[in-house]
Amino acid sequence: MRIIVYGIGAIGGAIAAQLSFSGHTVIGIARGRQLDAIRASGLSLSTPQGTRTARFPVHADPSEISFEPDDVVLLTMKTPDTLGALQRLNAAGLAAQPVFCFQNGVANEALALRFFANVYGATVMLPADYDTPGEVAAYFAPKIGAFDIGRYPSGTDGSVEKLCGILSASGFIVDPRDNVMSSKYRKLLANLRNIIDAALADTELQRKWHAKARAEAEAVLSAAGIAWDKTDAMAREELTITAIPGRTRVGSSTLQSIVRRTGSLETDFLNGEIVLLGRLHGIATPVNAALCKLSIELASGRMQPQSASDATIAAVIDAPGGTG
Amino acid sequence: MRIIVYGIGAIGGAIAAQLSFSGHTVIGIARGRQLDAIRASGLSLSTPQGTRTARFPVHADPSEISFEPDDVVLLTMKTPDTLGALQRLNAAGLAAQPVFCFQNGVANEALALRFFANVYGATVMLPADYDTPGEVAAYFAPKIGAFDIGRYPSGTDGSVEKLCGILSASGFIVDPRDNVMSSKYRKLLANLRNIIDAALADTELQRKWHAKARAEAEAVLSAAGIAWDKTDAMAREELTITAIPGRTRVGSSTLQSIVRRTGSLETDFLNGEIVLLGRLHGIATPVNAALCKLSIELASGRMQPQSASDATIAAVIDAPGGTG
Repeated sequence: MRIIVYGIGAIGGAIAAQLSFSGHTVIGIARGRQLDAIRASGLSLSTPQGTRTARFPVHADPSEISFEPDDVVLLTMKTPDTLGALQRLNAAGLAAQPVFCFQNGVANEALALRFFANVYGATVMLPADYDTPGEVAAYFAPKIGAFDIGRYPSGTDGSVEKLCGILSASGFIVDPRDNVMSSKYRKLLANLRNIIDAALADTELQRKWHAKARAEAEAVLSAAGIAWDKTDAMAREELTITAIPGRTRVGSSTLQSIVRRTGSLETDFLNGEIVLLGRLHGIATPVNAALCKLSIELASGRMQPQSASDATIAAVIDAPGGTG
Repeated sequence: MRIIVYGIGAIGGAIAAQLSFSGHTVIGIARGRQLDAIRASGLSLSTPQGTRTARFPVHADPSEISFEPDDVVLLTMKTPDTLGALQRLNAAGLAAQPVFCFQNGVANEALALRFFANVYGATVMLPADYDTPGEVAAYFAPKIGAFDIGRYPSGTDGSVEKLCGILSASGFIVDPRDNVMSSKYRKLLANLRNIIDAALADTELQRKWHAKARAEAEAVLSAAGIAWDKTDAMAREELTITAIPGRTRVGSSTLQSIVRRTGSLETDFLNGEIVLLGRLHGIATPVNAALCKLSIELASGRMQPQSASDATIAAVIDAPGGTG
């Protein structure tokens, strides 16, 4: 069984490297300087335990892979890039192979099910950085990360069991789940903070705005009849963010995207998911709508990372026609 | 009030030209050779009544437009291009202005509502061709086309009334609708034929496969609890496809995309919508799944337009792992 990891950023890179260290056959799909760096020198993974370099083949496009019936695909790109990735996998001949969405947000699974019959969700609890091509860092200890994994829209099956076995043997905590989307909605509530941490420097202010954003979100999910988990591997203290000597953590994937100037953030599929549900169910979401607007300023470079204040966010909330 | 028409293909072009002829302020967003041609010589619209050329400003990107509070945006690109368009409109500062989805399929409205507070659906009944930059042709008579228009997810409001008034005065049949998505699901059932007509030349075979695809779709929509209209302006015979002297109709928008070699079809959001709903609700959709697979072959150029036979489709349905 080959594991195709589509999107070798922080998460995809950490997973691909760990699987490769454990002797599994990994094929990466990456782009630009990351593709060049991995081809030239492999992918180095730094953890609190040390740094190792993984060597695995990496391609620019799925069309360069001749898919086999027992291949498994892990999607690890950000949501705005998912549709294009699915179209390219489809054009490359992927068919009944399992497609696992190791992605934040809750929009990828339904998009994938449009193209492929066997789709799975995975909640990713794996704080990791990618800021230099060819290098990723993952900060959890004692295990490197945790995943809740289940079939979409619900259930588990042999593909879930098989991947869970492989990931468990590769140093991850795994939980096969009958209702994986409940776990992903819990993660969504946590990810509402990504854009806040990218906009504001002060930890107390970050906490304050996350509490507001989260309260809106819980009201919206309740109105929409959507359940979310009340605990996860992080809450159960199975994992702790741990320092890596010589490295400073960049922060959330959103902040990393800003620092790398990728030009597009996934805020519209995190806070924006709450805004959408609010509009569908008639619940006001001024804080999350303002955070989506702020993400445009941050992504464009018009606003510097962590330069916002309380007043910045309040002004966006109060702007005419801005967050209705 | 300015009307921004985003995507000047056959539909966007016919609408923009008609509005412009009626004295409304139209701004187009187009790309490539179409952009160049309209800038150089305007956009000519051929109908059974004759050919006229419209002149209106046209841009490559929303960032070139300084949006005003009473602007209205019509989305007329194909669904695979909608997310990118919404992101660009958002980055360009569009906020509370109405966004109308004049698009096939039923996936655009929810995507737009993630970004913008005031979103509307419009069912487009307007057979039109775009094969030469700077030229579009529309084949309906006596009126040029018909639209059902309503607020998403439901209701109508002043923005619906206002746009309906403008379109009606510009030569279109309009129906403001409380439940516009029921109208769009009816259109979806008709659009299941697009890829069939692109794949098969024989009219009887086209009808046969459309009946099969449609039967699957009706079963799926019923299982999903989704209602669809039982009649529309075409069924009521208010509009008839009429010859334009000197022109041969290219055919559905899907066939036009193949002929223009755009490389991506909207089949995944037409027949693929049925496949997705089937997978979510446990209903088999082998015919629509096979048609999605066939669209890859047609879009890639590996299969010639209208070169398929009964056996071609049957073989895709029977392929192992192909359409589950």
